[in-house]
Amino acid sequence: MSPGSVFFLPNGTKLINKLISFMKLQQSKQEFEEVITPLIYKKRLWEISGHWENYKNDMFKVEGNDLAEDELTEDSQYGLKPMNCPGHCLIFSRFDRSHNELPIRYSDYSSLHRNETSGSLTGLTRVRRFHQDDGHIFCTQEQIFEEIDKTLKLINLCYRVFDLNDYELYLSTRPEKFIGKLEEWCLAEENLKKVLDRTGKKWTIREGDGAFYGPKIDVLLTDNFGKKHQVGTIQLDFQLPQRFDLKYRDDIGNFKRPIMIHRAIYGSLERFLALLIDHYQGKWPFWLNPKQCVIIPINNEKHLDRALELQQQLSGNMIKDSNQENIFENPSNLTNYKFEVDVDKRNETVGLRIKDSVSKAYNYIILIGDKELETGEVSIRSRSSKSIKTMTVEAVFNMFKTLEDNYE
Amino acid sequence: MSPGSVFFLPNGTKLINKLISFMKLQQSKQEFEEVITPLIYKKRLWEISGHWENYKNDMFKVEGNDLAEDELTEDSQYGLKPMNCPGHCLIFSRFDRSHNELPIRYSDYSSLHRNETSGSLTGLTRVRRFHQDDGHIFCTQEQIFEEIDKTLKLINLCYRVFDLNDYELYLSTRPEKFIGKLEEWCLAEENLKKVLDRTGKKWTIREGDGAFYGPKIDVLLTDNFGKKHQVGTIQLDFQLPQRFDLKYRDDIGNFKRPIMIHRAIYGSLERFLALLIDHYQGKWPFWLNPKQCVIIPINNEKHLDRALELQQQLSGNMIKDSNQENIFENPSNLTNYKFEVDVDKRNETVGLRIKDSVSKAYNYIILIGDKELETGEVSIRSRSSKSIKTMTVEAVFNMFKTLEDNYE
Repeated sequence: MSPGSVFFLPNGTKLINKLISFMKLQQSKQEFEEVITPLIYKKRLWEISGHWENYKNDMFKVEGNDLAEDELTEDSQYGLKPMNCPGHCLIFSRFDRSHNELPIRYSDYSSLHRNETSGSLTGLTRVRRFHQDDGHIFCTQEQIFEEIDKTLKLINLCYRVFDLNDYELYLSTRPEKFIGKLEEWCLAEENLKKVLDRTGKKWTIREGDGAFYGPKIDVLLTDNFGKKHQVGTIQLDFQLPQRFDLKYRDDIGNFKRPIMIHRAIYGSLERFLALLIDHYQGKWPFWLNPKQCVIIPINNEKHLDRALELQQQLSGNMIKDSNQENIFENPSNLTNYKFEVDVDKRNETVGLRIKDSVSKAYNYIILIGDKELETGEVSIRSRSSKSIKTMTVEAVFNMFKTLEDNYE
Repeated sequence: MSPGSVFFLPNGTKLINKLISFMKLQQSKQEFEEVITPLIYKKRLWEISGHWENYKNDMFKVEGNDLAEDELTEDSQYGLKPMNCPGHCLIFSRFDRSHNELPIRYSDYSSLHRNETSGSLTGLTRVRRFHQDDGHIFCTQEQIFEEIDKTLKLINLCYRVFDLNDYELYLSTRPEKFIGKLEEWCLAEENLKKVLDRTGKKWTIREGDGAFYGPKIDVLLTDNFGKKHQVGTIQLDFQLPQRFDLKYRDDIGNFKRPIMIHRAIYGSLERFLALLIDHYQGKWPFWLNPKQCVIIPINNEKHLDRALELQQQLSGNMIKDSNQENIFENPSNLTNYKFEVDVDKRNETVGLRIKDSVSKAYNYIILIGDKELETGEVSIRSRSSKSIKTMTVEAVFNMFKTLEDNYE
């Protein structure tokens, strides 16, 4: 019913949400400000941005259903956005800007739509509807170096957390046809090379492969089949600020044109998730796993109540009163730890339920039997080790907290 | 460029995000599972759901730009979704369902588009693109009572946090034209009345005002001009499960039709935000305020460094090393407290900056001068009281934590 659009079921949604929360937090180090922008814009906007001229066939067009054929005007035609940049340019241009405000950095997690041919759609790596950890930096010529430097540091920090240290960096430089001044290009490319050298990572040049509106740095990951995928990107843009007539006042009151940097750390969240699935092969680290822990009551009749109580305790819902009526009395707190804890209460043997839990790749499996009912402690084993340990509930919760805090 | 679609700037985005985080947390009490669903669906889906027949003119239609006139087929026409229900029905019907799994509850915060006439657009209360804290419950006949009961408790809990205890409840009953069995309607309405009585709140009946596919409960709030706005809603649906041929196996293996409940606690987030703006008149409680605290260095040359350091400490970014280079060394933690702390370093008098801070409705104003530099403590005043207290940084941070934990 919607080719190329993903239905994320509950576990997939948890993964996407975790990736987004993680990125929002990390990019606050570079002081990004999140905005929420429209999904449809009049054709006129796409003409200003140049998308209608250069990108039209990759876009979906939108119209009201209530219009008769002869009521269709330029103004009743919309485009479903394939990128966030024009929206962010509108926000920038909405107010008078002073050099004191720069750099201004907007981030946006909006849905984006690109009308890829049905033959090119593949899994999560090429879809029609996707989300980016998108961001645009409006800055002065002099600020480019520092902003790119911070962006590359952010990439390094984030990819390290996912244990993806073998990403590759590519610099694409000025093509034959280009807009903007030659000296701007030379300065920008010089800056990009200098900042790439500072990363200490090997990087590769793709001579003449930049977009006509600016040079760029691409981040590539290689999957387990050896295929390379473009993920993150940092792209300088001399064109859009001109098309949208963006300006700020410098320290002596003259209008100047800002530089725009398009950047994304993950790139497409859908594609990044595909690469993570490939990378972890289903064995998610604890902090990301939608299946962090499962509790198996050995005998449902005798041990299910304790298993359900333990689920509340370990998931961080902290329902002090066992009376379920009371959970609607007080709101849960925003900043408490929350963990994904399931109870496997199927009438199957303990052996089979453990085997299933391992194959579903829960990080931890907890058994509740007579002994655990008596002592209040739990028997716990990890996905990877068959040895069972006895721990207090508090010790387990603290272990979970440490794992999450350390992104393990 | 996009009439009826809101551009949320950074502070508005913070408010919307806070409202969403809050709701995700509270609705986990009713064990909702969040899903992410497509925004565009083929016309065929809207024909199945009945929207094409009954709601077509309120929808936007979507087409690829790459199609020539004669390539336009039924299958190349999409509708931009005005509601999430058909998508959730698709997920339900994708798998074999057993009575053991019910109730299944999906939540969704997708963008929705409705092609309202330009004359009817008003502020944030009636827009073309909006978001709901949308949820659908698929359950058995017998589970209706408990699900509605929980939903009403959730409404009461959430509205109380916003100090909106004077919401009104309306029950709309069977209209002349209806689908479904009469006995189903009678049972459902009886259940709704019983559960409304249990709330202890006064409720009003709107005889015959229900939709043709089921009875509903609406939640209304009155703004400061005396105008009533529909916000939350609980709506029974006997129709969609039929149109999508939804079924589950009961305990003896027979196929049965589930009941569907559409429900939203806020309703439209945009409209709820409008009512909160009206309700608080800009004086946001601490936990919601995008401007929680401002630090004013008395003399920029002498006190700015300390102000910036304090901003890091109080905002919860916890940068232990004052060397800014190091912030990209380690990822920030997901579950730490984060507060919105600004520094007003303008070269204006302290008096003017305090006045501005009060008019911008910061909850707390902190002054940093020579004394504070010496002692390491801070001078702090609240928005409402002119008296200035001296506190340690830790005490301020703990006060912020308590305010957030208690939704104050």
